[in-house]
Amino acid sequence: MIDKLIENIKKTNAPLVVGLDPTMKFVPESIQKQCFEEYGETLEAAGEAIWRFNKGILDATYDIIPAVKPQIAMYEQFGIPGLMAFKKTVDYAKEKGLVVIGDVKRGDIGSTSSAYAIAHLGKIKIGTKTVSVFDEDFATVNPYLGTDGIKPFVDVCKEEKKGIFVLVKTSNPSSGEFQDRVIDGAPLYEHVGKKVAAWGEEHMSKQYPYSYVGAVAGATYPQIGKVLREIMPHTFILVPGYGAQGGKGKDLVQFFNKDGLGAIINSSRGIIAAYQSEAYKEFGEENYALASRKAVEDMAADIMGALN
Amino acid sequence: MIDKLIENIKKTNAPLVVGLDPTMKFVPESIQKQCFEEYGETLEAAGEAIWRFNKGILDATYDIIPAVKPQIAMYEQFGIPGLMAFKKTVDYAKEKGLVVIGDVKRGDIGSTSSAYAIAHLGKIKIGTKTVSVFDEDFATVNPYLGTDGIKPFVDVCKEEKKGIFVLVKTSNPSSGEFQDRVIDGAPLYEHVGKKVAAWGEEHMSKQYPYSYVGAVAGATYPQIGKVLREIMPHTFILVPGYGAQGGKGKDLVQFFNKDGLGAIINSSRGIIAAYQSEAYKEFGEENYALASRKAVEDMAADIMGALN
Repeated sequence: MIDKLIENIKKTNAPLVVGLDPTMKFVPESIQKQCFEEYGETLEAAGEAIWRFNKGILDATYDIIPAVKPQIAMYEQFGIPGLMAFKKTVDYAKEKGLVVIGDVKRGDIGSTSSAYAIAHLGKIKIGTKTVSVFDEDFATVNPYLGTDGIKPFVDVCKEEKKGIFVLVKTSNPSSGEFQDRVIDGAPLYEHVGKKVAAWGEEHMSKQYPYSYVGAVAGATYPQIGKVLREIMPHTFILVPGYGAQGGKGKDLVQFFNKDGLGAIINSSRGIIAAYQSEAYKEFGEENYALASRKAVEDMAADIMGALN
Repeated sequence: MIDKLIENIKKTNAPLVVGLDPTMKFVPESIQKQCFEEYGETLEAAGEAIWRFNKGILDATYDIIPAVKPQIAMYEQFGIPGLMAFKKTVDYAKEKGLVVIGDVKRGDIGSTSSAYAIAHLGKIKIGTKTVSVFDEDFATVNPYLGTDGIKPFVDVCKEEKKGIFVLVKTSNPSSGEFQDRVIDGAPLYEHVGKKVAAWGEEHMSKQYPYSYVGAVAGATYPQIGKVLREIMPHTFILVPGYGAQGGKGKDLVQFFNKDGLGAIINSSRGIIAAYQSEAYKEFGEENYALASRKAVEDMAADIMGALN
């Protein structure tokens, strides 16, 4: 799946991923109204509204983006109907040829981590049948529990030709509380980064010098990109925090290798709620998806401009 | 909700929690067969099977246990039908008067952590309505992202009178890879423990000297219990790893305060799959729930014996 991700990036000339993190605030009034009329003010209405919202964005952008990253928390908050919208979004994005990164940040031990790996990347045995579950292409994973938490994911990735991105340095202000603490002369995130590189060593693409065990490192800490790039030369880095969280194209060059690959930059609000921002408000609510398309084009130009 | 947890513990004289972590391997053949006949070999059948299995255990044990801890991964692996079984289990356990600890180990930043907090402990606004979602009483939370990841949960807990348990030291063999690394003379888990105590300080029960911001620390590391007890005197500790993972009653005394409170010990497989173990096999598959009841009684006696 790392091969498909790289090929999609090359095809679109856009090392970016659209974060499909819908909240009701982002969904145009007209869609909300329709869904409330059909389902009442219920979780079902909310699930249907965010699915329709997502579909609009996918239809308007799928040919110029390599991947999407639905953040499962934004669906989980609408319960079962929200998770049904998550699943529909995953399936539809894959139908459109996109790579789907499930931003699930799961992490547990042994058999429990196996269950999460199966839920998001694998297949479950039921009686004599074997059934896919949420079936994303990649998942994000939390490293706090160590190798026991990661290995079950890597095993499933190997079997199913999928991939993970392990949290190394997150984009939030308090990420430093634990991640920056110095251990034997280096911050915790560097130790985690080294582990990620080690976990990935035997799990490489056959075609490209990258592993399907990737890392997450926030755009809000560009100086860290350089260090991580050195520690993890063959690790693909998923970089959140572009746009709304403050990162800009020129800050991100450090996350890439000389081959122009090795990183994929996420923007969520900046793309999916573009129509609500000053820069794209001329599109209006009814053309929210076109505003998203324009925001993708601008973001790609910003990143590619900085890289060239 | 910390009050209710403590009252339930006092009432049952059993500081333990039953981990409802079903896999198809644990579900008696007769239940599986029935569900396959009704739903085919599908996710729906699996969801229904684990729900019926759970209901049997809840009916047989609710009067002698204070709480249950469904591990959401075991439900998520069966997709939407699995999560429907999770929700039914949460609702039914609450109906039976039990405290429900959602073992979800979520953790993200800002608005995303808020979304998880709403999903598991809070309410979501939809149009003019406010709706409960999964609605557990407590949730487990991962600390790797720092205060940004925890605060949204604490806010929801305050509003809804619920609680969290933050991972401090997990029970698995490789938990030491990061959690034991020494920072300024103390292992990372102690730093996390201190943060948990600080996060909890302003969020205390009015009746008992305990906070509704709790911690998770594994029974497999009893010597750590003592240190954590000192660092976090007012923190309730959820202790996994009893039984199947190796912990025993006498190892666990350190996790308790002198008032006999301050900890709640989890057992999953040891209780719910008791009928499959040598010790309880005389119950047979059809009496699996009675085997669970006997295993609870034995576990309570083991812990209370060690405490007295």
